Amino acid sequence: MFDSFSLLAVGMPDLSVLQYSIVDNIFSMTVATMGAAAIFLFLSRPSVDEAYRPALMVSGLVVTIACYHYFMIRHSWSDAYMLAEGGEGYVGTGAAFNDFYRYADWILTVPLLMVELIAVLRLQASKARSLLTRLVIAAALMIALGYPGEVISSPEGWTTRVIWGALSSVPFFYILYVLWTELTASLDSQPAAARKLIEIARLVLLITWAVYPIAYALGGTVTALEAKAGGAVDAGGIVGLQVGYAIADMTAKAGFGMLIYFIARAKSTGVQNSVVGKSAESPEVAAT
Amino acid sequence: MFDSFSLLAVGMPDLSVLQYSIVDNIFSMTVATMGAAAIFLFLSRPSVDEAYRPALMVSGLVVTIACYHYFMIRHSWSDAYMLAEGGEGYVGTGAAFNDFYRYADWILTVPLLMVELIAVLRLQASKARSLLTRLVIAAALMIALGYPGEVISSPEGWTTRVIWGALSSVPFFYILYVLWTELTASLDSQPAAARKLIEIARLVLLITWAVYPIAYALGGTVTALEAKAGGAVDAGGIVGLQVGYAIADMTAKAGFGMLIYFIARAKSTGVQNSVVGKSAESPEVAAT
Repeated sequence: MFDSFSLLAVGMPDLSVLQYSIVDNIFSMTVATMGAAAIFLFLSRPSVDEAYRPALMVSGLVVTIACYHYFMIRHSWSDAYMLAEGGEGYVGTGAAFNDFYRYADWILTVPLLMVELIAVLRLQASKARSLLTRLVIAAALMIALGYPGEVISSPEGWTTRVIWGALSSVPFFYILYVLWTELTASLDSQPAAARKLIEIARLVLLITWAVYPIAYALGGTVTALEAKAGGAVDAGGIVGLQVGYAIADMTAKAGFGMLIYFIARAKSTGVQNSVVGKSAESPEVAAT
Repeated sequence: MFDSFSLLAVGMPDLSVLQYSIVDNIFSMTVATMGAAAIFLFLSRPSVDEAYRPALMVSGLVVTIACYHYFMIRHSWSDAYMLAEGGEGYVGTGAAFNDFYRYADWILTVPLLMVELIAVLRLQASKARSLLTRLVIAAALMIALGYPGEVISSPEGWTTRVIWGALSSVPFFYILYVLWTELTASLDSQPAAARKLIEIARLVLLITWAVYPIAYALGGTVTALEAKAGGAVDAGGIVGLQVGYAIADMTAKAGFGMLIYFIARAKSTGVQNSVVGKSAESPEVAAT
């Protein structure tokens, strides 16, 4: 099980020019989005109360780390492929695409995502510590159990991939369950202005996180694995997996970071102005 | 219509050394302009009232994202060409120039341009929200409908290109109409010092945005498409398109961002000094 090949993907499926370019371009857009979000979150710290600046700091770190990894992911993608002779498609160069960049990103950023959420909620310290411990352990398990399935590159490995995916889903659902119930429980202790936003955050969390298992499944169909193994079949599933992960990462990190910012603004005293519109009717103040 | 080649440009027309270099250099200048504008807008935030800092933040993000994309655009241009044997011109390497960078940039920045304008006007929140929703939907349509025409690479596709261009023009004119009328309507509620600047912004918007369809048209003449398809004709239209887009992007993003800064200064209380000149003669104060 732990020979060198089972922990690294080996097959790069043939892709059409369009398929290759969709993935290449979504990676580039993700770099731009994460980078812009990082600047926004870091520079916005003085606009919220001191108590909420750590939440923005951590949110900024999450998107910075993701910006770096998507830059590397894109390079790895570009190194793994070359234009086929005649220019009618892309074929593997022999270098494997490094799936581990994304898992390295998740190992670093998923715990930080938990921290930014708990920091902005400002729960009691003992409660926050216990929650974080459980969530971080679950996140580590979720990522570690997903990876061996991710790198399977042959249709015979389908069952094994499904098993790893299912194992990874246990901590995945546990995290979602804990966050959903904690966010719900925290609503009463939050200022009215922030409640609506926390409800939105709860929903965004559920929807964006749901994309990850879907992307994992798209890249793990028997056809997708046949394509990875070098079969002359449509590699659309592989494209779906990469695009799905990129979109989910943009929403769960940059989009979620923006929500953290809006919650921090809503909970800050003396913040009168929203990004758009006059204070009296700004969304933050309207709910008070 | 959606086969792999219709969504990606394929032909790189032969260019003279001058033609290649004009495009290469204008891309480089655009990187420098956008980067400098980003630093200016971010660092100027403390110089305006808290209420106008989000407008400068968003303006800074727009030029940051554009800086990244022009850097990538320039690389793609350089990857797509090589010096012909004998050094008498540039010929395609086989790698296609990635038109999608520019469209990815527009997808991210055009909505943000709407946000920065509305943020600096400080309309009522409900009004701002309704405006933004309409403008962002129209911007998405405009960009999505322009792209399939942009990547057409054969003279036979001329009619199709014109149709996509015409479809894209509908939301384009809608956006300009809405912004023009809203800017005009907002004049009465703006402080006297900002009115003149908003009138200038209205005009700048109209003039710079007019360059986009002109550039699109230059790159879509039958001759330009023949050049793209590999015909031995003058590729001046392709150069015109790239230069036109770059100039329009510099003005509509960096130039417009500067205007947003001046409007924010004019509307800030206690701002006595303009960038150049003494307070008594500064444009902001002169109009009061």
